[in-house]
Amino acid sequence: MDDLIFGRNAVSELLKSGHSVNKIFIAEGSRDGSIQKIFALAKTAGVVVEFVKRDKLDKLCPSRHQGVVAFAAATNYSTVEEILEFAASRNEQPFIVLLDELEDPQNFGAILRTAEAVGVHGVIIPKRRSVQLNATVFKTSAGAAQYVKVAQITNVAQTLKQLREFGLKIVGSDMSAEIDFNAANLTGGIVLIIGSEGHGMRRLTRENCDELIKIPMVGKINSLNASVAGAVLMYEIFSQRQRESSQ
Amino acid sequence: MDDLIFGRNAVSELLKSGHSVNKIFIAEGSRDGSIQKIFALAKTAGVVVEFVKRDKLDKLCPSRHQGVVAFAAATNYSTVEEILEFAASRNEQPFIVLLDELEDPQNFGAILRTAEAVGVHGVIIPKRRSVQLNATVFKTSAGAAQYVKVAQITNVAQTLKQLREFGLKIVGSDMSAEIDFNAANLTGGIVLIIGSEGHGMRRLTRENCDELIKIPMVGKINSLNASVAGAVLMYEIFSQRQRESSQ
Repeated sequence: MDDLIFGRNAVSELLKSGHSVNKIFIAEGSRDGSIQKIFALAKTAGVVVEFVKRDKLDKLCPSRHQGVVAFAAATNYSTVEEILEFAASRNEQPFIVLLDELEDPQNFGAILRTAEAVGVHGVIIPKRRSVQLNATVFKTSAGAAQYVKVAQITNVAQTLKQLREFGLKIVGSDMSAEIDFNAANLTGGIVLIIGSEGHGMRRLTRENCDELIKIPMVGKINSLNASVAGAVLMYEIFSQRQRESSQ
Repeated sequence: MDDLIFGRNAVSELLKSGHSVNKIFIAEGSRDGSIQKIFALAKTAGVVVEFVKRDKLDKLCPSRHQGVVAFAAATNYSTVEEILEFAASRNEQPFIVLLDELEDPQNFGAILRTAEAVGVHGVIIPKRRSVQLNATVFKTSAGAAQYVKVAQITNVAQTLKQLREFGLKIVGSDMSAEIDFNAANLTGGIVLIIGSEGHGMRRLTRENCDELIKIPMVGKINSLNASVAGAVLMYEIFSQRQRESSQ
């Protein structure tokens, strides 16, 4: 894993550099001064810190980790505000994708690649229980990860409320929805939610949607790969936006 | 790899069973009677045989291979005729996907999963220089591989000519095409071609298309994952077919 940084000095310098960090592992029982400084730096930067058994760090690191390991992000994170500003700077209605606890880095990478192709202004992911911007994501995105803004948030429901107040339509896809994705009006500022591979959208997320749409299926399996479902929906939104702007 | 069968008796019995085989490796220099019988059985069954260094077999197999290894298919292959008959039996215009030298098993699996969801009657792949139905494909397809007919063919251009004579429209996607995928008429019997990850469609394949369509993109990367591109196109065809049948 080329995004693993370990040792007290290295992790400390990484945090001070302002480079985005996906999370930090600290060995249980490490309490001395330099670890406390790293903990404080991480908290200031809003980085998730997990306390784990020393064994786990031993397995992760090829050499001495001194009780601390950081997972550097493959590119720097943006904020939700920067995503909205970016849309405004292009004079476009915001087109945002929110991943509700997606787990698979290959799906995340493929979604970023499609998002980049259709002009999505930014992708939002929760800081916890979600795949982060790592090397596999970067590679699978075919480099798109460096062009699409990705923002980490703490609370999905809260962020969705803020974005709705800002005037965006929150749209989620759900097997039980009554409207087919291509029969819905998906123009205007929009947040498209893509659920996790195993469970789809969480209940609280679903309750925060303005509109639920479904992707029709006629087979026996009745589920699509998350990056495929995301692509079909992103292309529908993209097409509707293009038709609208050419009118 | 759970689809590896080795040893002379085992491979011979596999071929006699009628179970589909993706390919057979025979160690260079193996010429005795039982190997010749396996070679003949493979040729009769239309299975690709490659002669490889004995070293390669040693690395593949956990125990004695006796100079022969078979890659069993995860499910049995169909034929192009069976795909056409299946469409006819459902009173539907054929909806076929042809993969032009796709390489990645995860892409193949994801394409099968989407194909199953939109009612594709069958997927056609070349026997050589193409990913085959293996265990990874089966897994990535979420089981769809057991429901979608997959036919192996020897010559893509020749098969496309036959399918065109049968009345199907051959449609390929190409960055340089002038028509957007959702502006084209994709109703009626159709063969959708999905090109390889690296090179797209080959020249000869492109020349055999009746229509070239493009998936518009506005980003810097300008390429989509093959399974994503396939899904966007399959869903457009599916939608057009549904609209047509509801009229």
